[in-house]
Amino acid sequence: MTTVRIYVTYKQSVFDPQAESVLNAIHQLGHEEVKDLTVGKFFDLQVEGDQAAVENTVKEVAESLLVNFNIETYKFEVLEAK
Amino acid sequence: MTTVRIYVTYKQSVFDPQAESVLNAIHQLGHEEVKDLTVGKFFDLQVEGDQAAVENTVKEVAESLLVNFNIETYKFEVLEAK
Repeated sequence: MTTVRIYVTYKQSVFDPQAESVLNAIHQLGHEEVKDLTVGKFFDLQVEGDQAAVENTVKEVAESLLVNFNIETYKFEVLEAK
Repeated sequence: MTTVRIYVTYKQSVFDPQAESVLNAIHQLGHEEVKDLTVGKFFDLQVEGDQAAVENTVKEVAESLLVNFNIETYKFEVLEAK
């Protein structure tokens, strides 16, 4: 069983109002030392199969379901392969 | 400047309907080899200061703003320290 983490973030060109408001809230708490913030989501998948099959599954699942390519981009890493 | 990534996930005891529905959708795509899935969010913070000050800022920001301790837990890692 392989554990794969898929990170989904907004493309650089996309303005993220959530990140903006969280950063403002952080500054209101007095933490001006926090200069920038980005927000993302991640999916941890437990996948059966050899490495090549797992990578293929991850790409298909990410590209057909988890990522909106109009505004998002993704990366993935293998966390654990047992 | 230090880049810190804060991972926020549901506690193990909390049922996550989003993860359940995403897993069902993955299976409907025919990917039965995906046996389990968890969903989380992450925040990348750019923070000024030395390592101790940065860790203190991260803890304060996570514990007073980013994490709902009733249902969530968090971890953080330093991605880059310049």
